Amino acid sequence: MKLAIGIDFGTESGRALLVDVATGRELASAVHTYANGVIDERLPAPDEDIRLEPDWALQDPLDYLRTLQGAVPAVLARAGADPADVVGIGIDFTACTMLPTTADGTPLCAIREFRREPHAWVKLWKHHAAQPQADRINALARERRESWLPRYGGKISSEWFFSKTLQILEESPAIYHAADRLIEAADWVVWRLTGVETRNSCTAGYKALWSKADGFPPSDYFGGLDPRLASVIDDKLSRTVTPIGSGAGLLTAEAAEWTGLVPGTPVAVANVDAHVSVPASGVVGPGRMVAVMGTSTCHLVLGSRPAMVEGMCGVVEDGILPGQFGFEAGQSAVGDIFAWFIEHAVPPADHAAAAAAGLDVHGFLEREAASLRPGESGLLALDWWNGNRSILVDADLSGLLLGATLATRAPAIYRALIEATAFGTRLIVDAFEDAGVAVDEVVACGGLPERNPLLMQIYADVTGREFKVAASAQTPALGSAMFGAVAAGAAAGGHDSIAEATAAMARIKDESYRPNPAHRPVYDELYGEYRRLHDLFGRGENDVMKRLRTIRERAIRDGSGAAPGERAGVGGSSIE
Amino acid sequence: MKLAIGIDFGTESGRALLVDVATGRELASAVHTYANGVIDERLPAPDEDIRLEPDWALQDPLDYLRTLQGAVPAVLARAGADPADVVGIGIDFTACTMLPTTADGTPLCAIREFRREPHAWVKLWKHHAAQPQADRINALARERRESWLPRYGGKISSEWFFSKTLQILEESPAIYHAADRLIEAADWVVWRLTGVETRNSCTAGYKALWSKADGFPPSDYFGGLDPRLASVIDDKLSRTVTPIGSGAGLLTAEAAEWTGLVPGTPVAVANVDAHVSVPASGVVGPGRMVAVMGTSTCHLVLGSRPAMVEGMCGVVEDGILPGQFGFEAGQSAVGDIFAWFIEHAVPPADHAAAAAAGLDVHGFLEREAASLRPGESGLLALDWWNGNRSILVDADLSGLLLGATLATRAPAIYRALIEATAFGTRLIVDAFEDAGVAVDEVVACGGLPERNPLLMQIYADVTGREFKVAASAQTPALGSAMFGAVAAGAAAGGHDSIAEATAAMARIKDESYRPNPAHRPVYDELYGEYRRLHDLFGRGENDVMKRLRTIRERAIRDGSGAAPGERAGVGGSSIE
Repeated sequence: MKLAIGIDFGTESGRALLVDVATGRELASAVHTYANGVIDERLPAPDEDIRLEPDWALQDPLDYLRTLQGAVPAVLARAGADPADVVGIGIDFTACTMLPTTADGTPLCAIREFRREPHAWVKLWKHHAAQPQADRINALARERRESWLPRYGGKISSEWFFSKTLQILEESPAIYHAADRLIEAADWVVWRLTGVETRNSCTAGYKALWSKADGFPPSDYFGGLDPRLASVIDDKLSRTVTPIGSGAGLLTAEAAEWTGLVPGTPVAVANVDAHVSVPASGVVGPGRMVAVMGTSTCHLVLGSRPAMVEGMCGVVEDGILPGQFGFEAGQSAVGDIFAWFIEHAVPPADHAAAAAAGLDVHGFLEREAASLRPGESGLLALDWWNGNRSILVDADLSGLLLGATLATRAPAIYRALIEATAFGTRLIVDAFEDAGVAVDEVVACGGLPERNPLLMQIYADVTGREFKVAASAQTPALGSAMFGAVAAGAAAGGHDSIAEATAAMARIKDESYRPNPAHRPVYDELYGEYRRLHDLFGRGENDVMKRLRTIRERAIRDGSGAAPGERAGVGGSSIE
Repeated sequence: MKLAIGIDFGTESGRALLVDVATGRELASAVHTYANGVIDERLPAPDEDIRLEPDWALQDPLDYLRTLQGAVPAVLARAGADPADVVGIGIDFTACTMLPTTADGTPLCAIREFRREPHAWVKLWKHHAAQPQADRINALARERRESWLPRYGGKISSEWFFSKTLQILEESPAIYHAADRLIEAADWVVWRLTGVETRNSCTAGYKALWSKADGFPPSDYFGGLDPRLASVIDDKLSRTVTPIGSGAGLLTAEAAEWTGLVPGTPVAVANVDAHVSVPASGVVGPGRMVAVMGTSTCHLVLGSRPAMVEGMCGVVEDGILPGQFGFEAGQSAVGDIFAWFIEHAVPPADHAAAAAAGLDVHGFLEREAASLRPGESGLLALDWWNGNRSILVDADLSGLLLGATLATRAPAIYRALIEATAFGTRLIVDAFEDAGVAVDEVVACGGLPERNPLLMQIYADVTGREFKVAASAQTPALGSAMFGAVAAGAAAGGHDSIAEATAAMARIKDESYRPNPAHRPVYDELYGEYRRLHDLFGRGENDVMKRLRTIRERAIRDGSGAAPGERAGVGGSSIE
């Protein structure tokens, strides 16, 4: 039996998965929780006296190596597998998660002289302190009508590579200067495994403004942001970008010792967690959208030619699969909205009824909401509790619930929130189709589909698309293992292409959710209402959400609490 | 010491209050809970096999007499008062609460032959089953451009006198035929007390389309609704309407026996609970609005000349005080919204925190909400959980909450709901002022002001008006006692006018709520946003609320539960 290992580096932990290359059967998995986790208040010991500003989020790169040292030997041991049977390794990562290193790949934070400088550490994807830099990057790109900007829905995020890079340069020029390389953590781990620096086309395309046709933005654009940045690509990155699906190199003796694998085992080019889920969900060509549904949702579609889709996160050639254009869109809160609702807006009576029924609150609300017909709640929501990623690309938008009466109960609101996220998905599907990118059906993966049949049925009913569900509960690690098998090639017991690997190793569940014809007309009607509200509040006709945010920020800035006479709740000095 | 008794007939109980005529001091009060309460499912024993349709709400008139027999002797006993010192009696009632009787005032439901017929019973104010009749009354009035219609904001309610009357005629012609009189319960109780049928100008004006200048609508209008209704005024009512502030008659021997009072004690013309609160709040002239704030809010203003105020409930000469025009407006849900929120949308953590702080949930949320500055919640709501009474007069509107994020917590929503009701009040104040009816300050009474200082402060800040609070916790009963004192007259130890009674007997609290100048600008801004949403969703620009209601009604009509494949919450037959 030939095996492949996929390693999925997440936000709090890394997971290794050992897979049968011939069938995709998952033989063993192991999770390694990062010792230093998300570093967002102070640096780890012995430097815990260094406090971080709000919106910072760092990681310790040694936690990634410890994952290799812990989780990989664990899966081999659990499965009783012979390391010689492992034909290839692949990894995927959160992104953009990046760090500064020396020319040999040593992280600056691992060097005594730099370790007390926060900018020497890994900047995690959710490090949001580079918003001012992102704002300037966007402003200059708009001003210069940079041709790459439309590929990213007209706006890049504070999370992306050059936002973080510019923040390092501006706030810690010494670190910027000391960094021979600025690199995605995904590529850094592959470098540690193979001894060879490789830059993958997925993170380069989706996070670092690279495209296969045009390369990186021009030097004079970077120079316009800061003269010291003009040569950033040649100084700190690389113009050589390797497509997804390639081999990055062979396992070094040192890395073989860490992992218990055989030196020389092929290692795939690194990938991003959401994107590597596409082949793991059985999708290798156009027409089928993969929806990675969890706290937020990421929508991935393949196309044979570029297209400008309104409000997408990016379109990247070789970004998801080699030789194809990968489109990414997203909803910035999905599971997060339901979790918010359950924690902050469901009354004790429903908690008690759930317990009495032997259900968790999610399960109870789902059961109750399932007894309502489409439209029966009388409610309509806009799913903008965390802004809108696609298609409006506007973080300043906020949530709306309309239609409440004295008879409205929690399960009806729960259903309306599910429906709102489904309408948001339909808008994205429509945007793709309007741009000529087909979405005939959807394969869902991630944490939500498994546990929420009502949600899946509503998504099918609202979008008019069949929703299938990936069989694996850990599609990123499975996808990485598949890329590991491709790095090995068929001659070495792997596969020669990701399409072949997908055919052999990826499965979707037998059950699927088909649109219920009886529900389609009423959801068409409600979707029309959703769209009207979406355009009204999202496209500038009534900017009340933005104005409320401005008023709110002013209220917070102008004082840290209530005005005199209010805090006591008894009128205080304003009563007389 | 000369005394007066006021009796306030509410929805679930009646309250008697014994008051010192010289000072307004409240000596004793007693509550009698109606044995048959609100009859909304089945008739009382022995006729409990008769079930009522939804939206029905009846009462038993004998419960009113039992209130006279129970509560009045109780207050005399509690105060150790000499019945001979009681110089007058006044009563107030919910309205429109009406019943059919024989020519001598015997309720038809008290006659064996009729008692199993629901239409023979008292129709309580919140009997809402006459909506089809109200719709036809409104349609014909609009078609004929009836001159009385604008006095009622262009629309009358299913609760009003002729909606209920027409329902009796259409659904039970035998009862309509057997009824020699159709009469407000308020006037019926005064009839029982005095032996004389008297119709008060308040209910006649606000509920039965009467005006001092024009009388009732013409016979051909009634005939247009139904030929049998053409002579309803002369057949079943009376064209003699007695102004508020008059005496209705003297206590009969029988009623003296019920109450323990002296036969011949003067009895005032009946009144309505909200309206009688105006003099009890110290208001006897223009410029000061009385806000009766409880589950809903009723706004009452006096004026020296008629005016057409958008969306008011009615303008009636002699409707509140003799010789003045009484204007009434209303918000259909206020305390009800807060109660809904606390029961159905506050999570267990806040309930627990309230208990830990030794507060009820209202008190806890108020304390937490008070620590937020105006605008800090980032939220804006439309207070239409029970439709909109003034100024849109539209029961089909519904609630809206806008601005929610993942960081939104219950106290912020609570504050936004309070603010929404305050904005609704400001719109009403503005509508009065726009029509030339001055509202310089507000006197609040009812259940809410006493317990909710934050709410009162927000109302002052939002409206820019000083809010004072009536001293009495039972303004309706106090107002009725004041009218009882006026029925007696100064020569008999009472007062010669309601103005004199008010000067002597009504008080407001020393504390008041003045607008906080620091809060005015931000509330002006938020009010502007509220108004835009109000007009957008309330004036036809986007009728999504009405369409959601239509969709909802269709969903309920078309099936009693979920479609196949949903109820089980596991996809059922739509999964394959």
